[in-house]
Amino acid sequence: MPKIVDHDERRLELVGATWRIIARLGIESATMREIATEAGFANGALKPYFPTKDTLLTFAFSHVFNRTNDRIAEVTAGKSGIAALRAFCLEVLPLDEERVSEARIVIPFWQKAINDPEKAAIHQESMEQWQAAIVRHLAEARKNGDVSASADDRVIAGHLLNMLLGAQIAAALAAEGQPDLRLTDQLQSFLDLLAK
Amino acid sequence: MPKIVDHDERRLELVGATWRIIARLGIESATMREIATEAGFANGALKPYFPTKDTLLTFAFSHVFNRTNDRIAEVTAGKSGIAALRAFCLEVLPLDEERVSEARIVIPFWQKAINDPEKAAIHQESMEQWQAAIVRHLAEARKNGDVSASADDRVIAGHLLNMLLGAQIAAALAAEGQPDLRLTDQLQSFLDLLAK
Repeated sequence: MPKIVDHDERRLELVGATWRIIARLGIESATMREIATEAGFANGALKPYFPTKDTLLTFAFSHVFNRTNDRIAEVTAGKSGIAALRAFCLEVLPLDEERVSEARIVIPFWQKAINDPEKAAIHQESMEQWQAAIVRHLAEARKNGDVSASADDRVIAGHLLNMLLGAQIAAALAAEGQPDLRLTDQLQSFLDLLAK
Repeated sequence: MPKIVDHDERRLELVGATWRIIARLGIESATMREIATEAGFANGALKPYFPTKDTLLTFAFSHVFNRTNDRIAEVTAGKSGIAALRAFCLEVLPLDEERVSEARIVIPFWQKAINDPEKAAIHQESMEQWQAAIVRHLAEARKNGDVSASADDRVIAGHLLNMLLGAQIAAALAAEGQPDLRLTDQLQSFLDLLAK
């Protein structure tokens, strides 16, 4: 019987390999050849899946974003208001090695998006989706009397979103053995300020 | 008389050209040849100033950081506490075209710093310097009774710094004609929360 190839699965294998190579070598040194070798593909066998490094990077970014959203859906299930907002932010913050690796994918994507309107649009859409989720949780929290800040919820959400983006940079560039970034404390102190 | 060449001035000309090319073409397309042409240098004439594109990028980043610090020194002169903190943050936020251009230099620098400990160390030092300035202004503000938040000032400073970094990404990736990011409102609402 001919071997049935699951193309989606092979794409995900390639994303995994891309990640490891980018984390190890940086995006500029992550050639298609390196990625193929890492994934156990013959050189040239990537082409049917990803014709260029650029399409692979876009796919890898979308995959990180979707994976983060799956985890967010899990951790916020059955929660609302401040509890949901806290769970959401804790999931986006780069608090473990896996998510620091994801930050190392996302920063090169941002860099490319500066001069690539299609990539910038993918970023925008993702951020609008997160902004809407934060605004929704803030509205629930106000209903419960857990948020009394006078600012517009869209402004608060924009601030929090920027903090979550900045945390990716802080974590991706942190030196080994550097003191803890205290990102969880930063989040908690902000939520405390909203409730005051 | 032989023409006297001011090497520092020529380096700054090259930084200006680098900027314009990166803003126009992106960092990957910003070749040494493109930068030389933009600056009105013969091809190869860059080498005595910057042997590689990498040394040029590091110099350009340091220049952005120093220039921002010069502007911060100007706008915070004679101020302390919340007024100094507000002026500091308003200067770091990418609120005009010049500072959005600077964000477009800084993001490629971060991307390179992920796999380059020397660049990461330059980023760390810059951030420690800013963190210390924010903590100093918070301490002054507490003395004046303008900050009553219970959180550790280093945690508040870390949060604010992350928000300022994230704002660079939001601004650098914003589409033309996109609604205003409301970064000034985001800052003001945070300062209001600290004072509550």
